[in-house]
Amino acid sequence: MNLKRYLPILQWLPEYDRRQASSDLLAALMVTVLLIPQSLAYALLAGLPAQVGLYASILPLAFYAVFGTSRTLSVGPVAVISLMTAAALAPLAEAGTEQYIAAAVLLALISGAMLVLMGLFRFGFLANFLSHPVISGFMSASAILIVASQLKHVLGVQASGHNLVELLAALFSGLGDVHGPTLAVGVGVLLFLLFARNGLAALLTRFGVPAGTAGIVTRIAPIFAVVITTLLAWQMDLGDRGISLVGFVPAGLPALGLPSFDPELWQSVMVSALLISVVGFVESISVGQTLAARRRQRIDPDQELIGLGTANLSAGLSGGMPVTGGFSRSVVNFDSGAETPAAGAYAAIGIALATLFLTPMIAYLPKATLAATIIVAVVQLVDFPAMVSTWRYSRSDSGAMLVTFVLTLAHSVELGIIAGVLLSVGMLLYRTSRPHSAVVGRVPGTEHFRNVQRYDVELCPKVTFLRVDESLYFANARFLEERVIELLAGAREMTDLVLVCPGVNHVDASALESLEAINERLGEAGVALHLSEVKGPVMDRLKHSDLLNDLSGRVFLSTFDAWQGLIGDRTPQRMIS
Amino acid sequence: MNLKRYLPILQWLPEYDRRQASSDLLAALMVTVLLIPQSLAYALLAGLPAQVGLYASILPLAFYAVFGTSRTLSVGPVAVISLMTAAALAPLAEAGTEQYIAAAVLLALISGAMLVLMGLFRFGFLANFLSHPVISGFMSASAILIVASQLKHVLGVQASGHNLVELLAALFSGLGDVHGPTLAVGVGVLLFLLFARNGLAALLTRFGVPAGTAGIVTRIAPIFAVVITTLLAWQMDLGDRGISLVGFVPAGLPALGLPSFDPELWQSVMVSALLISVVGFVESISVGQTLAARRRQRIDPDQELIGLGTANLSAGLSGGMPVTGGFSRSVVNFDSGAETPAAGAYAAIGIALATLFLTPMIAYLPKATLAATIIVAVVQLVDFPAMVSTWRYSRSDSGAMLVTFVLTLAHSVELGIIAGVLLSVGMLLYRTSRPHSAVVGRVPGTEHFRNVQRYDVELCPKVTFLRVDESLYFANARFLEERVIELLAGAREMTDLVLVCPGVNHVDASALESLEAINERLGEAGVALHLSEVKGPVMDRLKHSDLLNDLSGRVFLSTFDAWQGLIGDRTPQRMIS
Repeated sequence: MNLKRYLPILQWLPEYDRRQASSDLLAALMVTVLLIPQSLAYALLAGLPAQVGLYASILPLAFYAVFGTSRTLSVGPVAVISLMTAAALAPLAEAGTEQYIAAAVLLALISGAMLVLMGLFRFGFLANFLSHPVISGFMSASAILIVASQLKHVLGVQASGHNLVELLAALFSGLGDVHGPTLAVGVGVLLFLLFARNGLAALLTRFGVPAGTAGIVTRIAPIFAVVITTLLAWQMDLGDRGISLVGFVPAGLPALGLPSFDPELWQSVMVSALLISVVGFVESISVGQTLAARRRQRIDPDQELIGLGTANLSAGLSGGMPVTGGFSRSVVNFDSGAETPAAGAYAAIGIALATLFLTPMIAYLPKATLAATIIVAVVQLVDFPAMVSTWRYSRSDSGAMLVTFVLTLAHSVELGIIAGVLLSVGMLLYRTSRPHSAVVGRVPGTEHFRNVQRYDVELCPKVTFLRVDESLYFANARFLEERVIELLAGAREMTDLVLVCPGVNHVDASALESLEAINERLGEAGVALHLSEVKGPVMDRLKHSDLLNDLSGRVFLSTFDAWQGLIGDRTPQRMIS
Repeated sequence: MNLKRYLPILQWLPEYDRRQASSDLLAALMVTVLLIPQSLAYALLAGLPAQVGLYASILPLAFYAVFGTSRTLSVGPVAVISLMTAAALAPLAEAGTEQYIAAAVLLALISGAMLVLMGLFRFGFLANFLSHPVISGFMSASAILIVASQLKHVLGVQASGHNLVELLAALFSGLGDVHGPTLAVGVGVLLFLLFARNGLAALLTRFGVPAGTAGIVTRIAPIFAVVITTLLAWQMDLGDRGISLVGFVPAGLPALGLPSFDPELWQSVMVSALLISVVGFVESISVGQTLAARRRQRIDPDQELIGLGTANLSAGLSGGMPVTGGFSRSVVNFDSGAETPAAGAYAAIGIALATLFLTPMIAYLPKATLAATIIVAVVQLVDFPAMVSTWRYSRSDSGAMLVTFVLTLAHSVELGIIAGVLLSVGMLLYRTSRPHSAVVGRVPGTEHFRNVQRYDVELCPKVTFLRVDESLYFANARFLEERVIELLAGAREMTDLVLVCPGVNHVDASALESLEAINERLGEAGVALHLSEVKGPVMDRLKHSDLLNDLSGRVFLSTFDAWQGLIGDRTPQRMIS
């Protein structure tokens, strides 16, 4: 049972049959065809040689097939993680150098180790730190950054930078050097891909191709662009005409090996590795959940951490870059009929074969082609409608989104995401730090108590009833202290304060200390503190503390008991309306 | 009105009378007498020359009198903030050098600016990040560190270090060089102060001194130790006998001036300044609230930020170190009868006079005396009973406390407090990420719905009712998605899911998106999503979104309406008991 939890492969492999195998093989073929250009493109985006992207698409897929819980998720390099990888490595080394590659591999390894640890300790909830508006703002900004960073390959100019301002300035100053043939290839591929996305499916169905097949053909369109421009480059010697090609890619499978153990390097990539882990996990799990729900399957988030973690660990041990589950590939996998994670393992074999036999061809692939496929893939991540609808729905969420968006664009992906997380958590803390509370009075002639500001109720100036509608914990403990001191300062005649607690589900150690402080301060001011309607579990907890012994007043079962015990037959002296 | 809020001095100055003035003057005298040795001692603790402590006790007190809201808080250098100052400055410069002093002054200025900004933007809730267990663990560990760091002055040896291991190792290796005369002074003062704390008050009352006076004499005992050992050192030339004295202190008031504007220095003290601000604020506000409650006064936390902020700003502009409200001084001020913040202003005049006229005497003060006063003052901050009671009450809170305690001792004050904060917020997020939810069924023959796991209720396998007992926001949005997918995977016959929302007070943008995703995923699986018992304000909010349009099912006023609408007269097919 437990073994099945940690090795999800045991859930499907024993019953694996020929029908499933043939579905999986077909899906794997489609995914392989899509994954080859994606691996190369995202390696380019990350500033890495092409083979690093390929290596990241072999072992990681196999490991995810063993440890992952999604039946259809396709793991490998993805756009945003590649951008984050580039941003993390930029301060450490020159793109493409040995050091740079070593740092990328180390990043994958550390990120994998972090994910596995988070999974083993069931820390999946950490992904909750990333609110949807923050993710959305981050994704939109990242996509814009990616487009800006790839334009240089389409224009055939030199330009680099790590935020939009730098990138645009560099592109602008390079406009004079635009390389015509490169631009022709880039724009040609762009137009083809845009057509493939918007018109091809309709055209194919008009020619009688089934809708499902047409959809898949549309999605794997990049491979046609890759094949055609590669053949062109080979036949027409485009490299000699100044078009930048991928160039020599070593043939053969990746060598296994441990990455560098330079402690300084480790320290400098820790934060980046954490961010990459969390963003990758969030992206992957939302893809996985979307697909699982369609077939009424479910995925286990903590085990997903382990699945993605082992995938990244294996990337780190086999010269690959950080990976996660990608949306477009997973959809192709799903739509092509993948039934089990074996499809992923077969795709790994496909990429391995490509690495063995296709590298001489890949060398002729124009970078402009890859850049165009990246641009078309990520441009759909820019989600301005989400910004508008979030603005309509909630100003504070919209603020978090905007801050993340602007900082990611204007400064860096890391600052953007960190600021977004801090802002979200800060807003949560702000909201929970002011829980709803109300001074309540008795509805005349009944045993009911209501907010004095909304109802006509009886009050007694000597006894104040304060109802708190929230669990008490460190985020709002101080609020309660302030509220009570405020009441105390405003009611000179008060001799008793009753804390009415029907909404208090939990009292943590901070709140307990606040209650003790309130009890002491009220005592020094000559006011007794009472409690009423304390829930059973809370009361059990409080019995492990000194509060009940030290309490200057009593604990009443009901608020009406407190009213009778403290006010009795004395006629209340005020009536609030 | 608004002016009075930002200038609390206007609340009391217009009615200030002679009686109040004489009470305030007496209290100021007591505070001055206590503050002179404290200023010197905490400057020593921070690795700063004596005058920096004195300068921090002049303008800051005057500014707090104008902008602060506590009537009795006494602002100035305090032990923990001085320790944090030392820790912040250690990596930047050699203790006591010009650069070191400049950095300390800058730290006060930046910390002051941060506090003022937090006050203006009403960011006082940020102090909620520090839970009581974290503060308690931090204070205990800091006190132990402070004692360890001061032992060298009592022993007359050289020793330095920034965590307990380093400090103890240094002390141990210096044990051979213990300086007898220094040890005699140090231990003598220690014994005297311990006697003053434990036996003096009883002795004095036995001789007919009123209890209040005896209490104050006890509290200002350090000044007797200071005066006596200073006179001894002067008369017996203790400095020539190898006892380390405070030495030359420039006479005269501090010069006003802007600190260094070296951007690199600014950047390297930012985090420290933030931590010092927040810890100082938390310490100060708890002292202020305790004293205010005794007289049924209240303090305004956001204005307190401004009060403490201007105090630190003025410290930074007049060559002083970071300050905050101190416990022992404030209690002396309160017990001596201070009625308004004017007492603080008078104490500022007292320290100014000391700076003008007493520095020739202060030069003879043995450092061992100061170290002994520090040790006796901070040893009471070590709160092992709090650790035990927190352990009894809550294991998770106790864990946060212990981590903070151990990391502060074993690594550094900054790492300790940051780890504590992260752990507290992480635990909050963890707790809120799994809100209570239950599948409910109908209590037969009624309109009531109850948890299927606790009650005998009717169920229909086609329609699932899921009740959520918590507001929905980013921290638990993903949980809801997982819960629904789990239900979906487990109930193949399901055609309708009703989300029962009586406990949902708030739906943020993340949760809204989750609801939309749930709606879509259920739709793809052929299940309609319905809502019931949505609260009015939540419904108003949802009308600004597309959810209600896109919803595959309906919105029912009551759960019973949903039952009738979806199940109607069909007999439910299962009965759970």
